[in-house]
Amino acid sequence: MVSSEDVTQLHRKDSQAVLGIDPGTAVTGYGVVLRREEGGLYLLECGVIRTSSKEPLPFRIREIFRGIQGIIDRFEPGSVAVEDVFQGKNVRSALTLGHARGAILLAAALQDLLIAEYSPREIKKAVVGTGNATKDQVAYMVQRHLRLKTPPAPTDAADGVAAALCHCLVTGSPTG
Amino acid sequence: MVSSEDVTQLHRKDSQAVLGIDPGTAVTGYGVVLRREEGGLYLLECGVIRTSSKEPLPFRIREIFRGIQGIIDRFEPGSVAVEDVFQGKNVRSALTLGHARGAILLAAALQDLLIAEYSPREIKKAVVGTGNATKDQVAYMVQRHLRLKTPPAPTDAADGVAAALCHCLVTGSPTG
Repeated sequence: MVSSEDVTQLHRKDSQAVLGIDPGTAVTGYGVVLRREEGGLYLLECGVIRTSSKEPLPFRIREIFRGIQGIIDRFEPGSVAVEDVFQGKNVRSALTLGHARGAILLAAALQDLLIAEYSPREIKKAVVGTGNATKDQVAYMVQRHLRLKTPPAPTDAADGVAAALCHCLVTGSPTG
Repeated sequence: MVSSEDVTQLHRKDSQAVLGIDPGTAVTGYGVVLRREEGGLYLLECGVIRTSSKEPLPFRIREIFRGIQGIIDRFEPGSVAVEDVFQGKNVRSALTLGHARGAILLAAALQDLLIAEYSPREIKKAVVGTGNATKDQVAYMVQRHLRLKTPPAPTDAADGVAAALCHCLVTGSPTG
């Protein structure tokens, strides 16, 4: 992790921040990874946007949208990598998750950012080398790639970081 | 239907326009119904927002969002009635529809509008008097309630009008 002063400098230099997002109506995880021209990858920030199930759905969507907008404002990423996942069992919960994803994609599209979507399998393959990797293997490789003292936490934030990292690894060098 | 000059006057007078929406990723139908203090209901406009399946999903969501934003800007409704429907068969299409609904609810929530959601059954019950009404019965009653020469068209626009009408009928007088 780099200091916020460094971040600004790094950022201005080549503007290659990637925002990774693991969408969810209750918890949306995110991670911002910077790739520098020489190829180094740095975790700038990770975290979660939580919404309360007591709030009406439109308010929760608005909170997610504003949260993502705020992150985009602060880091000005060039690309957004969104995890394309649905593990739920029924149509109703897919519909609800779609609302959150819609708000996230919209926040990115309104800024004309490059948007990439990756399945959990693609993310595991890019980060660990195999689509069947366990959560622990992913956490370990994320930590190694980004030279962190501990894996990103909580889990949803780690998934956001993994999505951003996947995008960096898949798309190769910033000039490529 | 009233002329646009009348609309402005009617609108300023009591500001009771209701925007009804039938969400869809490909076609989103809408109708704007005005209710005046004396209880009369008027259709101000109806139409559809179409998006191309050739466009990436984030662009389509953005188009729907901007379309709804534009309608809200023009008519300044106090309430938005959204049809809460999913007739698809699989989780993937529910997820996709959720994206469109998310963008619509967000456009309304960002303006702090009152948002009501109605199932197709609730809409039929309010407009026709029975939740088992046919499409034709709904079209006929929409036409009668709003004193139109022909039913609203196309179908998706008519569904948006029916949602707005349902909200007006369910919530009663504008002062109530």
